[in-house]
Amino acid sequence: MIRVTFLGTSAACPTVRRNVSAISLQREGDLMLFDCGEGTQRQMMRYGTGFSLWAVFITHMHADHFVGVTGMLRTMALQGRSEPLLLTCPVSGRRVLDDAVHLGFDRLSFPVEVRELRPGDRVSRNGYEVRAFRVNHGMPALGYALREDDRRGRFDVERARALGVPEGPVFGRLHRGETVEVDGRMVRPEEVVGPDRPGRTVAYTGDTRPVRSTVEAAAGADLLVHECTFAGEEAARARTTFHSTAAGAARVARDAGVARLALTHISARYSEHPARLAREARRVFPATIVAADGLTLEVPHREDPPATPPAGGRVGAT
Amino acid sequence: MIRVTFLGTSAACPTVRRNVSAISLQREGDLMLFDCGEGTQRQMMRYGTGFSLWAVFITHMHADHFVGVTGMLRTMALQGRSEPLLLTCPVSGRRVLDDAVHLGFDRLSFPVEVRELRPGDRVSRNGYEVRAFRVNHGMPALGYALREDDRRGRFDVERARALGVPEGPVFGRLHRGETVEVDGRMVRPEEVVGPDRPGRTVAYTGDTRPVRSTVEAAAGADLLVHECTFAGEEAARARTTFHSTAAGAARVARDAGVARLALTHISARYSEHPARLAREARRVFPATIVAADGLTLEVPHREDPPATPPAGGRVGAT
Repeated sequence: MIRVTFLGTSAACPTVRRNVSAISLQREGDLMLFDCGEGTQRQMMRYGTGFSLWAVFITHMHADHFVGVTGMLRTMALQGRSEPLLLTCPVSGRRVLDDAVHLGFDRLSFPVEVRELRPGDRVSRNGYEVRAFRVNHGMPALGYALREDDRRGRFDVERARALGVPEGPVFGRLHRGETVEVDGRMVRPEEVVGPDRPGRTVAYTGDTRPVRSTVEAAAGADLLVHECTFAGEEAARARTTFHSTAAGAARVARDAGVARLALTHISARYSEHPARLAREARRVFPATIVAADGLTLEVPHREDPPATPPAGGRVGAT
Repeated sequence: MIRVTFLGTSAACPTVRRNVSAISLQREGDLMLFDCGEGTQRQMMRYGTGFSLWAVFITHMHADHFVGVTGMLRTMALQGRSEPLLLTCPVSGRRVLDDAVHLGFDRLSFPVEVRELRPGDRVSRNGYEVRAFRVNHGMPALGYALREDDRRGRFDVERARALGVPEGPVFGRLHRGETVEVDGRMVRPEEVVGPDRPGRTVAYTGDTRPVRSTVEAAAGADLLVHECTFAGEEAARARTTFHSTAAGAARVARDAGVARLALTHISARYSEHPARLAREARRVFPATIVAADGLTLEVPHREDPPATPPAGGRVGAT
């Protein structure tokens, strides 16, 4: 199970309806955040994510993306947490993030590691990794892509039976890659097991212009969460402020051949009426939604993994 | 008009129902905050206080009382603010508050003055002052009392008429303190104007044990906002953590002879069901309410100002 919950979907200023940036992602027993704007801890309570985070991946050091760390860590301490917590940020962010960690604190009851990442750096966990990728926000800024390890190929039960393989533990041995002997003949795993299937990928941009490096990092992703501060009428402003329009984000999703696109970081002027953003994006990439605070998306396995998109090319979305 | 709006009424951790500490106070055209915990700017939007603050009075440097400053200042800057803002804090708080002001910022578009106050220090404005008073939270911590200037005494229209004073501008001259001549006789203001009437007082403790200095600072106040983290069952814990129980806060209100007591800074365990706190407090001081996020109290003039309470004595509450 991968479950993505949008905890804050506004741009720089919160609104009554949208808090500032934060996304929780749960994968099996692992819970993590991407960005942690002011008020995130209360959104976690409101939307029931729990607090058993192992990591918080900060995209860049603008206040609306990280100042929620201070209060959240304090609440964790009051809850008696003892497990370590990893906080990541782009290069040159550590000093500011350290300030946020320690603001108004003497000390925490649990270890906090603040780690600067460069584009391409990976943080590995059991069964997946989170890779930082380059974006363009006019300052040190990262996107993050969670990519699961490949899964074993599909086991072809009919073919195995036809080869005389007895049902039971031998199926499992073949699926795990062992060659087995059946009636004096060797059956190799590749005779009954398909090619490895890619795990799922979820990519999140943080704040950025639409850029090629996102297309590459999100290639074939099951879900791309892309910032979308503006509608097309403010394309010039999006460019000067290093943000994206709906159509710009949609072009990235289309070029990356992702399954779904969720738009977030919505400017206050569209906060109450985001339909315009959805309309503009769907003209380019139909499988688009505009996220809202509290929205939860489940990310299922796709049984037919998409082909790798050709450079600059277009792959049909589901 | 004095209007007090509770923006956050939880203790250290927010809950779904209560945000961390902040109170807005509007007096005529002046808007100010007392404390500014994480998420206060969004509460200001939710409850429609506006952002035209002239000052934020921070009681102490625990995260749940001041970290909302960072995001609020950024939003003010994005709104194009140019007016200066005063932030006050107890001695030794400036460095941390400066950190919060500048966290993740290059610079602000408006001047921010961070001023440390000692108990007894006053900040004067047209028609009122805010005075810092000593509390006991086991660290540098202040309460604040807003006290209006005295108002002129009541003008006795019947008496003025009996003295032959013609209605009109002469009434105003007498009320402003001038002696006037009426039919060759001098009429002195004290013949027709009662003694000065005290302005209104609103006192807020921040976090503290129940202490005598609050009784003194809140003497005769129209409204006392006192912290109330615990019920009586946790009196020992209240004492070791330098907090107050409902009954402890109520004793302060009773001894100070205030008109009304509002309890805030409610521990999460009572957040949903604060009736117990109200019950315990009202046994000691009936005119008690437990504040809730969004609660607005108007503070009217009292036509019969209460006598100054005798030392350690008891004055009946309304």
